[in-house]
Amino acid sequence: MRDVQSERDERNVPLKKVGVKNIEWPLKVLDKTRGYQYTVAKISLSVDLKHDVRGTHMSRFVEVLNNLEMLNPSALEEILTSIKGKLQAERSHLEMRFPYFLWKVSPVSGLSSPLKIEAVIEAEKGVESTIIMGVKVPVHTLCPCSKEISENGAHNQRAMVEIYVRSKKMIWFEYLSEIAERSASCPIYTLLKRPDEKFVTEMAYKNAKFVEDVTRDVALELEKDDSIEWYKVQVTSFESIHNHDAFACVEKGWM
Amino acid sequence: MRDVQSERDERNVPLKKVGVKNIEWPLKVLDKTRGYQYTVAKISLSVDLKHDVRGTHMSRFVEVLNNLEMLNPSALEEILTSIKGKLQAERSHLEMRFPYFLWKVSPVSGLSSPLKIEAVIEAEKGVESTIIMGVKVPVHTLCPCSKEISENGAHNQRAMVEIYVRSKKMIWFEYLSEIAERSASCPIYTLLKRPDEKFVTEMAYKNAKFVEDVTRDVALELEKDDSIEWYKVQVTSFESIHNHDAFACVEKGWM
Amino acid sequence: MRDVQSERDERNVPLKKVGVKNIEWPLKVLDKTRGYQYTVAKISLSVDLKHDVRGTHMSRFVEVLNNLEMLNPSALEEILTSIKGKLQAERSHLEMRFPYFLWKVSPVSGLSSPLKIEAVIEAEKGVESTIIMGVKVPVHTLCPCSKEISENGAHNQRAMVEIYVRSKKMIWFEYLSEIAERSASCPIYTLLKRPDEKFVTEMAYKNAKFVEDVTRDVALELEKDDSIEWYKVQVTSFESIHNHDAFACVEKGWM
Amino acid sequence: MRDVQSERDERNVPLKKVGVKNIEWPLKVLDKTRGYQYTVAKISLSVDLKHDVRGTHMSRFVEVLNNLEMLNPSALEEILTSIKGKLQAERSHLEMRFPYFLWKVSPVSGLSSPLKIEAVIEAEKGVESTIIMGVKVPVHTLCPCSKEISENGAHNQRAMVEIYVRSKKMIWFEYLSEIAERSASCPIYTLLKRPDEKFVTEMAYKNAKFVEDVTRDVALELEKDDSIEWYKVQVTSFESIHNHDAFACVEKGWM
Repeated sequence: MRDVQSERDERNVPLKKVGVKNIEWPLKVLDKTRGYQYTVAKISLSVDLKHDVRGTHMSRFVEVLNNLEMLNPSALEEILTSIKGKLQAERSHLEMRFPYFLWKVSPVSGLSSPLKIEAVIEAEKGVESTIIMGVKVPVHTLCPCSKEISENGAHNQRAMVEIYVRSKKMIWFEYLSEIAERSASCPIYTLLKRPDEKFVTEMAYKNAKFVEDVTRDVALELEKDDSIEWYKVQVTSFESIHNHDAFACVEKGWM
Repeated sequence: MRDVQSERDERNVPLKKVGVKNIEWPLKVLDKTRGYQYTVAKISLSVDLKHDVRGTHMSRFVEVLNNLEMLNPSALEEILTSIKGKLQAERSHLEMRFPYFLWKVSPVSGLSSPLKIEAVIEAEKGVESTIIMGVKVPVHTLCPCSKEISENGAHNQRAMVEIYVRSKKMIWFEYLSEIAERSASCPIYTLLKRPDEKFVTEMAYKNAKFVEDVTRDVALELEKDDSIEWYKVQVTSFESIHNHDAFACVEKGWM
Repeated sequence: MRDVQSERDERNVPLKKVGVKNIEWPLKVLDKTRGYQYTVAKISLSVDLKHDVRGTHMSRFVEVLNNLEMLNPSALEEILTSIKGKLQAERSHLEMRFPYFLWKVSPVSGLSSPLKIEAVIEAEKGVESTIIMGVKVPVHTLCPCSKEISENGAHNQRAMVEIYVRSKKMIWFEYLSEIAERSASCPIYTLLKRPDEKFVTEMAYKNAKFVEDVTRDVALELEKDDSIEWYKVQVTSFESIHNHDAFACVEKGWM
Repeated sequence: MRDVQSERDERNVPLKKVGVKNIEWPLKVLDKTRGYQYTVAKISLSVDLKHDVRGTHMSRFVEVLNNLEMLNPSALEEILTSIKGKLQAERSHLEMRFPYFLWKVSPVSGLSSPLKIEAVIEAEKGVESTIIMGVKVPVHTLCPCSKEISENGAHNQRAMVEIYVRSKKMIWFEYLSEIAERSASCPIYTLLKRPDEKFVTEMAYKNAKFVEDVTRDVALELEKDDSIEWYKVQVTSFESIHNHDAFACVEKGWM
């Protein structure tokens, strides 16, 4: 059978990322406190394509995934290397997003329940490999302006903290999530009994924060960690008095 | 050219809705206060298909839309009739969803800005025609339990009120939206200056409501309107202390 | 602490479904060929609320989920019973959606890979309990009209077959998925080598089907199964020559 | 009333983009063939925030939008300038996405119907201003490998061509869309009668293209246009024999 993909391409345009995306795949992932957890990922795998080759063999990306047993740093490295080899490419790329669960304990009654965050991995390998780890963590923000000017109460809402980092050493999703939660007005929980609800309501009221405040506090925590070479932070607050969102961003390099 | 769709089907299975969906279409819509407004709709059009015909001529649905100039009750009626005729069907169906804007005035500073709601129309025509009008209106809810048990503040959040009605007379999206807003802890706005923010914060705090409260208050308002033959209400609150939502429903007929 | 939810409500409006939704939860699910598989579900749990009670205790739904170990028919029954009891309700409701993987073997090269379908469960318990099982299975459709009128080729595309059933006995997701795949122009696969690609291309071309054809063929298969008391089928084809979709529906009762 | 946002911030962290997002707004947009068209946009507006100021005044972004009458290059420039001024910022940013309609004529029967594309604008203004214009255009691709190895037919599918450019002169969405359509196996249409369907089926079969081919052909067309200073292209094909997508990218600078 003719191999159309391998034919010579005369247009001489090298391509940057060529591959498959939106593959959904069952995954076993390294977990800091429980050893591992199971999830379902959306995955993109690709390579840079030389100027004189017509196409990539897309099925080989899936064959590489078929060999994945547990997602951890060495497995990531192996996927990237394997793709480079199988597709004779100079650079391979990977992007993954999956729900990841933190087992959180409610602040007063001490009850445990899973909180879903989104985990993100973006990695590539040319001569060396680069791995960016990220989390999207739901938190609670309470508006300092609304609190200051109102006789009672203050508007508050669910917000999302996104942190992406490149680091010299392995970074846990749990580590980034804790920074996100500490920087917000209050963490959020899946299971709260009445004494817990009192606690989080009062904690948030004491701890009013704009998206700008949360973003800065996350940045300052990341600056203190010498192993982090690069980071990007975005905080989005689903404003409860509006039908739109407020947001703020910062990236390493402002110092 | 052979007309494969018109061929006789020997399987003898009549089908219920056969047609096109997720068509996006620019639309001019009747507006209570401004005469009309422009929007972009997602549309589904279909017919019931007889047991002995193989397929529907899908292009004819699009031809019917091509004739639409302004969406109002008579245009709806015409689309349904036209589809029935063109496709020789005993029943035609239509479903539309589109962003619709309410020009709202902020409570203290009196500034005007557009608030986007979602408008929904579900209509069908057999011998008679039936039209269901609906809105999804964003509002603000403040938790009565959190307020009661906490020393300061109370968790609050954006919530969505969905109202669907079948009525003897034409129903305005504005009319349903006002019921939704009156039944919530507070309406929400696109543009609020500081005195407005103080006002809505304090109004919501005075007016604490569970999703159950909002749902019941909407139902009681709809019961008072004799022209409304049927309704369904769902209120969803994007709980700010959780990563999940609370909801409550009611449908005409509980009395 | 005052229990605001339990207070007497004077509005006298009974509510139909009151509870939590969009909870994401890690799940172990019964699997026909492998015993079980792990996934992540979106879950809604609710009860009917009496006319004279103000609110539901939302945290109790989460406590029920905390006890779930493996999702199978008896666990479903237990969740519904447990919710009814804990919330002193006359009727409890559950809705779940989760990615579910079929390990499929490519038709010529015999290579195995996971194909993601969406599994749906809708269940409720009053005096008796009712369970609806559903699947959304991606397949391939090739247009009979385009094939008939064109000199070469025929437009084809990804399509989605949705099947929902209520049955006297336990129904496997695998069983419904096979009916969906047999009724399409061709099944689809995550991993196909070149001889497989030749096979599926030619199979689809021989087996041209409108959405109407797929819908009818699924219905006829379901009619043959005496244990199935009710079903609903919807087939949606992501038309490759348009930017909109074609669809067809059928529900038990047309005979 | 105290102005909390304007207070001095001692953390000394300058922020990169601070503002509002997911505002939905009715819009009148410049149209190449019809003068203008109406649509509904999702908008993000933001500024860079100095290290010593606590927060941004979010309502001012909405006030700027309130003055927008028709979206064209000078209105974009005015929004960016106005935001910079009102918020005393050194840099302002804007991002917009909206459905935009092309009135296309079917290839044989000559019937006109609207095809929805997505229009994207990303602009910022520091000392100078930069504007990136983009389109996401649905097209049809037919697989050269499947055609070559199969006796009859070839798998084909809807695909999406994304083109983003920065140019010395004003770029029309229509211009970019035509490049996308010319580079695919075939354009797609909302309304096609049978002779049109024959035409597009046969055209696509003659014109088999991988995502790699489409990407390269778009890039070569953009390279020929001297006014284009930078571009980025991504083509995604919703593979009809898989449940995942194939994609390829290229960015100016490979020459």
